[in-house]
Amino acid sequence: MHIILLSGGSGKRLWPLSNDTRSKQFIKIFKRPEDSAPLGKDENSEYESMVQRVYRQIRTVDPDATVTIATSKSQVSSIHSQLGTNVTISVEPYRRDTFPAIALATAYLHDILKVPENEAVVVCPVDPYVENSYFTCLQEMCLKAEKKDGLVLMGITPTYPSEKYGYILAREDENGNSIIKFKEKPDAQTAKKYIEEGCLWNGGVFAYKLSYVLGKSRELIGTDSYYELYANYDKLKKISFDYAVVENESHLSIVRYHGEWKDLGTWNTLTEAMEENAVGDVRMNDKCENVHVINEMGVPLLVMGCRDIVVSASPEGILVSDMEQSSYIKPYVDDIKQRIMFAEKSWGRYRVLDVEEQSMTVKVTLNPGHKMNYHSHERRDEIWTVISGSGRTIVDGMEQPVKPGDVVTMAAGCKHTVIAGSKGLQMIEVQLGKDINVSDKKKYEFPYK
Amino acid sequence: MHIILLSGGSGKRLWPLSNDTRSKQFIKIFKRPEDSAPLGKDENSEYESMVQRVYRQIRTVDPDATVTIATSKSQVSSIHSQLGTNVTISVEPYRRDTFPAIALATAYLHDILKVPENEAVVVCPVDPYVENSYFTCLQEMCLKAEKKDGLVLMGITPTYPSEKYGYILAREDENGNSIIKFKEKPDAQTAKKYIEEGCLWNGGVFAYKLSYVLGKSRELIGTDSYYELYANYDKLKKISFDYAVVENESHLSIVRYHGEWKDLGTWNTLTEAMEENAVGDVRMNDKCENVHVINEMGVPLLVMGCRDIVVSASPEGILVSDMEQSSYIKPYVDDIKQRIMFAEKSWGRYRVLDVEEQSMTVKVTLNPGHKMNYHSHERRDEIWTVISGSGRTIVDGMEQPVKPGDVVTMAAGCKHTVIAGSKGLQMIEVQLGKDINVSDKKKYEFPYK
Repeated sequence: MHIILLSGGSGKRLWPLSNDTRSKQFIKIFKRPEDSAPLGKDENSEYESMVQRVYRQIRTVDPDATVTIATSKSQVSSIHSQLGTNVTISVEPYRRDTFPAIALATAYLHDILKVPENEAVVVCPVDPYVENSYFTCLQEMCLKAEKKDGLVLMGITPTYPSEKYGYILAREDENGNSIIKFKEKPDAQTAKKYIEEGCLWNGGVFAYKLSYVLGKSRELIGTDSYYELYANYDKLKKISFDYAVVENESHLSIVRYHGEWKDLGTWNTLTEAMEENAVGDVRMNDKCENVHVINEMGVPLLVMGCRDIVVSASPEGILVSDMEQSSYIKPYVDDIKQRIMFAEKSWGRYRVLDVEEQSMTVKVTLNPGHKMNYHSHERRDEIWTVISGSGRTIVDGMEQPVKPGDVVTMAAGCKHTVIAGSKGLQMIEVQLGKDINVSDKKKYEFPYK
Repeated sequence: MHIILLSGGSGKRLWPLSNDTRSKQFIKIFKRPEDSAPLGKDENSEYESMVQRVYRQIRTVDPDATVTIATSKSQVSSIHSQLGTNVTISVEPYRRDTFPAIALATAYLHDILKVPENEAVVVCPVDPYVENSYFTCLQEMCLKAEKKDGLVLMGITPTYPSEKYGYILAREDENGNSIIKFKEKPDAQTAKKYIEEGCLWNGGVFAYKLSYVLGKSRELIGTDSYYELYANYDKLKKISFDYAVVENESHLSIVRYHGEWKDLGTWNTLTEAMEENAVGDVRMNDKCENVHVINEMGVPLLVMGCRDIVVSASPEGILVSDMEQSSYIKPYVDDIKQRIMFAEKSWGRYRVLDVEEQSMTVKVTLNPGHKMNYHSHERRDEIWTVISGSGRTIVDGMEQPVKPGDVVTMAAGCKHTVIAGSKGLQMIEVQLGKDINVSDKKKYEFPYK
């Protein structure tokens, strides 16, 4: 099957584990099954993220699936780092809503990956917490979409009268045609009624023949060309696929999914899905009840005599919250003006160790064989001290091999990069200057291969 | 007055704020009164530690008091850092109990500070949480001790039937002589009875003429010479002053103290004494009740909807505990095997930023005009990158001035030091080697003045 995974933006609801470069789908909190191989470039292969879990599940159900991730530029590094480079990415040059994203990704499949327009594709979020049978259901949706026009939707058997989801009422008329009605997120009372009437949760999953969405793009945007969509992406209207397409479509059909389905968007729901109460260096005494802890700091975390709380520590900050209250986190996090303290990059990762008025100290980890962009800074000098591994640096065109203990100094304006050897490379980077800022970066063509 | 402050060992009950080099008395959590001058070399003068609070109170009550702190070598740096270098320290070369410590400090006053033996001295713990009148009471005790033989004790008016303190029953016979009986820590029932009988809390404070303890030293140890006591300190029996002296003494009298008196040895009691619920970068929502937070990490800490808990974060670790449960912390902390992540030194402070298998990265802050020992390491190379301030380094006898951006490399075996200029100096130190260890250090005479 062809599958497009929509990878959404940075949520603040899982602070401090998510930040502008790491969305919730990249947080590693699920115990990876022992019989599965680690994905991407993971040293710590004991846990996997939502995106890794979903990708592994797809591969389990359909080893030949082509997986395309529709997302913004800022997530490309994290995706390559977590899933490796075999996955294809339809990069959204700006953040628009789901209709532009799906139109662009569909054009990408057609124009770049050369998928014929009579083949079907299924679009689903990158982070549902589901059983493998969810992906079998996606296959069924694709098969169905190939056989008929219009859209195939997923209807999920509800397990409780949730107020958080949209509902779908699906009936068949006497000719066997589906009659489908959409219901907005209801209150608990209405939700109960919906369930009694046989409504399903709207899974936000769509399958269609490429030609269908290419047609919608021509009709609503004026083009179905990938390059044109990409070039004019900033001018596209922010509109959801539901609003632009689904609600106006009469050729709809439903495939049902009966298994577990959770949207892990808040600490409350995320911790429910954790197989273990603690991830990282965590100790609890036996008076703790329903305590969930994720500790990404390199120091011990001890919890004593607490109940119904979540504790989460990362280089960005520390959260201690009552489970219920954790849903109201957003305004408090909005209020925190913060430098990004860690990030996954396509070449490895970095972590800010220290910030002073005119300096910043960063630990840089390059994956084996990977390299930084060849770049320079206008307003800061940098000093690298290699602490492990080996590699080569290029500074203003001059190459030299480096090993632990070697120091490389780069004045402002000087072009530089580092290429890790076969065992990777770690170094401490000291940045010195008056206005240290990630945006102070000029990139250059790599001087040679 | 002459005063000896007994500064005890490292408590684990206030983990993660206390460690092997920083005892609870050095944690800065009390709002410093705005009309008082900061002590020692404090940049952050907004808060003061227990030892700073006590020292300030002594100076307020008696600006001419001579203050001697009896403590182990490991605390000398912290004391100088927090109180400056005017305070005198009687260094215990090993940890013994209070009788050897008081004998040594008394001999120090007599032999080194040349205090005549008919003058009185008062000995009290370095960390009581008390009102200024406590120190007026110490003055009274000194005056009383100068006028009579034996020991003067402090009896504190109890405010509740505590099970944590010893009690003193003081009566006068018909000749006006004190009859004093000591009671061990009782259960709550007995404590109530003691209070009804007029018992006082035993403050653990003693005043005496120097000659009195010098006599006890000769009698029980065989010498009252400071140098002999110091040289043979490791052979002295571990015995408390109470057990060795007080309980066998019939010439006892009492001075009463009526004010507030707290032993801030656990999170429970410490947080009660905090004027503010939060120290450091802390945010709480309005659903928090009786939450106390001390955040010494450089990142935001957010607490939502919790009650009756203490949260404490330092470079050593993170604690989240129910108030009551926090008293049982010790065994859990004993179980944590941990490198010391930060320390106050006589010359400034350091903080471990990163630990890898064969490297450690440390941020070093030297106070203005201060210097490290001239030293070398056998099994590690070091690389310094200056990030702020200026100074001079001496490496194998070669001196050079340094400023931000300068890099100094020192191979294993190489002697080195750094001397901060008038604005202090900060640097990032990368240590590289197979067995990085604080004990791998050889000190040398400073090459010149």
